[in-house]
Amino acid sequence: MTKILIVGGVAGGASAAARARRLSEDAEIIMFERGEFVSFANCGLPYHIGGDIKDRSKLLLQTPDSFLARFNVDVRVMNEVIAIDRQAKSVTVKNLIDGSEYTERYDFLLLSPGAAPIIPPIAGLDNPLTHSLRNIPDMDRILNTLRSNKPKHATVVGGGFIGLEMMEAFQQLGIKTSLIEMAEQVMTPVDREMAGFVHEEIRNKGVDLKLGVALQSVEYLHHQNSQSLKLQLSNGESRDTDILIMAIGVRPETQLAKEAGLRIGATGGIYTNAQMQTSDPSIYAVGDAVEEQDFVTGNPTLVPLAGPANRQGRMAADNMLGREQSYQGTQGTAICKVFDLAVASTGMNEKQLQQSGTAYEKVYVHTASHASYYPGAETVSFKMLFDPQSGKIFGAQAVGKDGVDKRIDVMAVAQRAGMSVQQLQHLELTYAPPFGSAKDVINQAAFVANNIINGDATPIHFDEIAHLTDEQLLLDVRNPAERKNGNHIAGDINIPVDQLRQRMHELPKDKEIIIYCQVGLRGNVAYRQLVNNGFKAKNLLGGYRTYKIATA
Amino acid sequence: MTKILIVGGVAGGASAAARARRLSEDAEIIMFERGEFVSFANCGLPYHIGGDIKDRSKLLLQTPDSFLARFNVDVRVMNEVIAIDRQAKSVTVKNLIDGSEYTERYDFLLLSPGAAPIIPPIAGLDNPLTHSLRNIPDMDRILNTLRSNKPKHATVVGGGFIGLEMMEAFQQLGIKTSLIEMAEQVMTPVDREMAGFVHEEIRNKGVDLKLGVALQSVEYLHHQNSQSLKLQLSNGESRDTDILIMAIGVRPETQLAKEAGLRIGATGGIYTNAQMQTSDPSIYAVGDAVEEQDFVTGNPTLVPLAGPANRQGRMAADNMLGREQSYQGTQGTAICKVFDLAVASTGMNEKQLQQSGTAYEKVYVHTASHASYYPGAETVSFKMLFDPQSGKIFGAQAVGKDGVDKRIDVMAVAQRAGMSVQQLQHLELTYAPPFGSAKDVINQAAFVANNIINGDATPIHFDEIAHLTDEQLLLDVRNPAERKNGNHIAGDINIPVDQLRQRMHELPKDKEIIIYCQVGLRGNVAYRQLVNNGFKAKNLLGGYRTYKIATA
Repeated sequence: MTKILIVGGVAGGASAAARARRLSEDAEIIMFERGEFVSFANCGLPYHIGGDIKDRSKLLLQTPDSFLARFNVDVRVMNEVIAIDRQAKSVTVKNLIDGSEYTERYDFLLLSPGAAPIIPPIAGLDNPLTHSLRNIPDMDRILNTLRSNKPKHATVVGGGFIGLEMMEAFQQLGIKTSLIEMAEQVMTPVDREMAGFVHEEIRNKGVDLKLGVALQSVEYLHHQNSQSLKLQLSNGESRDTDILIMAIGVRPETQLAKEAGLRIGATGGIYTNAQMQTSDPSIYAVGDAVEEQDFVTGNPTLVPLAGPANRQGRMAADNMLGREQSYQGTQGTAICKVFDLAVASTGMNEKQLQQSGTAYEKVYVHTASHASYYPGAETVSFKMLFDPQSGKIFGAQAVGKDGVDKRIDVMAVAQRAGMSVQQLQHLELTYAPPFGSAKDVINQAAFVANNIINGDATPIHFDEIAHLTDEQLLLDVRNPAERKNGNHIAGDINIPVDQLRQRMHELPKDKEIIIYCQVGLRGNVAYRQLVNNGFKAKNLLGGYRTYKIATA
Repeated sequence: MTKILIVGGVAGGASAAARARRLSEDAEIIMFERGEFVSFANCGLPYHIGGDIKDRSKLLLQTPDSFLARFNVDVRVMNEVIAIDRQAKSVTVKNLIDGSEYTERYDFLLLSPGAAPIIPPIAGLDNPLTHSLRNIPDMDRILNTLRSNKPKHATVVGGGFIGLEMMEAFQQLGIKTSLIEMAEQVMTPVDREMAGFVHEEIRNKGVDLKLGVALQSVEYLHHQNSQSLKLQLSNGESRDTDILIMAIGVRPETQLAKEAGLRIGATGGIYTNAQMQTSDPSIYAVGDAVEEQDFVTGNPTLVPLAGPANRQGRMAADNMLGREQSYQGTQGTAICKVFDLAVASTGMNEKQLQQSGTAYEKVYVHTASHASYYPGAETVSFKMLFDPQSGKIFGAQAVGKDGVDKRIDVMAVAQRAGMSVQQLQHLELTYAPPFGSAKDVINQAAFVANNIINGDATPIHFDEIAHLTDEQLLLDVRNPAERKNGNHIAGDINIPVDQLRQRMHELPKDKEIIIYCQVGLRGNVAYRQLVNNGFKAKNLLGGYRTYKIATA
């Protein structure tokens, strides 16, 4: 009779326990969870705080009792595994309620301890108004502070998923909110110019967004009937705030694994092979605590996301019970709702490509989420990164109010399948006016990419516009009405695309014409006209829309 | 100087014209359109009639003037190409305004004539209240009838895309509507049980839906101040109606091609090779008029949809002007909005697999469009067809109120990329509570499929339940509350899954236990318990939900 012990009862651990039972009726399965809750919806916590999810009990997907009834799993909450004896194949468990300790033997041990919020060494952080958010007790503490302190101002430090979601929750509750992010952008999986759309949305909703600013110190002010915090920021400003959320990131929980002498990867996560086996073949590890392989580069990486954790848990159970499953790397596919926007990405971003010294090209497309003549169409701003030689897909990013998840899903599948940008031209996606376009966002991006690969387009990018020389001439091919209120690039001239054939003689043949329009489509029409008439030209990919948000 | 003539100025023709000009500034390009309009949004026509698209001009994407200004294309509306002289490489054109005829020489000719509505030989159809819908004048005629006749009752014959959209348009206008469909289901790209959800939606919205019923004759009744139609149906019923839309399908417009001696395929569409070249290398053809290759089988097929037409037009232009592009077959990816539902599919359906004698397996999943604890989640009903040996994806179908387009897009990409259902397990799709689930619909369907392939699940399907023998026992593992109001299968017994371990002794070991639950998930848990305890068992895939809609 196989005995399986599982450390951690949320995504990866719970998936493994359920799968293990489905595979074996007679395995003994014990799941230890040092907290009070198992299998809770940690991705839902900010939405309960913000009021979208009214009912707290909806976050509790399973209980120890329900797990026992359905899966015959012995779930021991408030029981912490504090040591592993690999020789004896046993663990020491501490009962956190009465402090007693005991040991359990295992045939297989699964580590799914998750990751813990990073708390930076900032003076004054240890106070009753400062919280992180990782589990149900964290959430309850935040809700208690909201009830007792009735904050008028909240501050969130960190512009990742949880930071953005907590910012939105506070704004939704009518609490004036500051978001403090040390980097020059929120949502680091996308590149800065794509994050620009998110910055715009955040500011439009009235959030006090500070980029490139760090929290330096916190002072806890306790008066007779009130308490608050005074925050000092790295830019010299300060904020008086009533609740502070620290959401700068997480680090893998590896102490138990380290003390047991298991191999820890270069990124600080527990090392596993593709079968989710640690350096000890009887011990598996999954989820936020493990080091994964990047799907594109094969390099080790940390991807603390729910999808990989769930699938890894299932696979670890398969492998413990004689099925053979290999985890096939993580693309880091991610999405975040930020007020009315969605921002999403898969694969590598431009920052990572630059760091790794990889040769790449990029295209931008801004086009309607569905047929523009049908109500409700919204612009999808889409960026695709690829190898200009082979057409290999490196990554994709999208921002918009509609259809963002769908486009990144399409790219995530295409990338995982090893499709090239040439093949993306042929994708046959659902089309009816309420859902898409006959030439979808992805087809259009593929057309632009292939024009570059085939030499039918010569791109220029927004960051090159500041460095134009006297040998170049900047040409806006939009209509004059679109240029109003300073909505154009200084130093340009304007000939609308539909007048270009008649007015081509106004342009010099000895200069390179740098063409731009609103999103790059008319620019391409103008580019082809000029080049086919013997001009030298380049077209600004993504047009003025990309340029403006990138240089804002 | 290359001279390109294009017959037909909508999707395929217009795409080809624009692409040709971008590739060559000095090509002479003439586009003939026998109608009054080019490049109009034919997919939008029903939505203007129903009032979703208020502004008629939004349907006119381009005009001859705008085409000339931007692409220097000579657009000749009300000019019909009536003959091709392949020897002389010229066409005879009839000016439909003055009746004059003239010839134009070509280097390359592109045929994009589209398809025409099929009008069956039914007595009495030729009357002022009967319309089809294919272009702007058809739409205007329908709008005129609506204005002048103020119909209280409308009848639509044919439950394809246009029929369903017109049915919805009429209902939306407050007109009581009958939908008459000769087959036992609407929306033939999906299988009948999946169409069942659509039938339910249609009936719930108050439409008089008649399946398996044909229109037999029409009588035009003209009184003093009113006119109406009396319809005789094949089931003996009749309907008094005030407007009749015939939408039973389209057939390729091939007369011109036939008369020119071009090869016509077995399906009745113009034959082309993968480069969109007809049997005459100087003549290309694209869109609804051509025979395409089915992506899965390689067999010839007709797929009158906008996406393929647009991409084929672009490719034909590429090939005429020295680029090399091959069309890579059509999956028939399609979607239709039916009131609050979307119904979509890609690849082959079960009917086609049965006809072709292909061995296949199928799985059903009914699961939430995004995290069920986050507001707005709707059930996606998903069917996947695959090769139980190789795991090759044959096709997929989905119905639901949210997230249907996304799931079929994912499947369309996966199928085109040649992914297997094994690989679908590893898909890493966007997940945050407002957008998806950590285990997406597609991952879940892949898990079910792989359980079957690996021998970890033995499925039974809804159509086998009627043929159970005395050697089989039907077991409902849902809770008693779910069985109320007759919501269970006659002759079953009920043991809730969470009581099964304690009550397993109630079950006979010599019979095969046929397990079912609501959607198949708890059924699988019960199946694993029983099989691992030495019982013979099968699990009803898709559960009672699939069974109920399939047998309704």
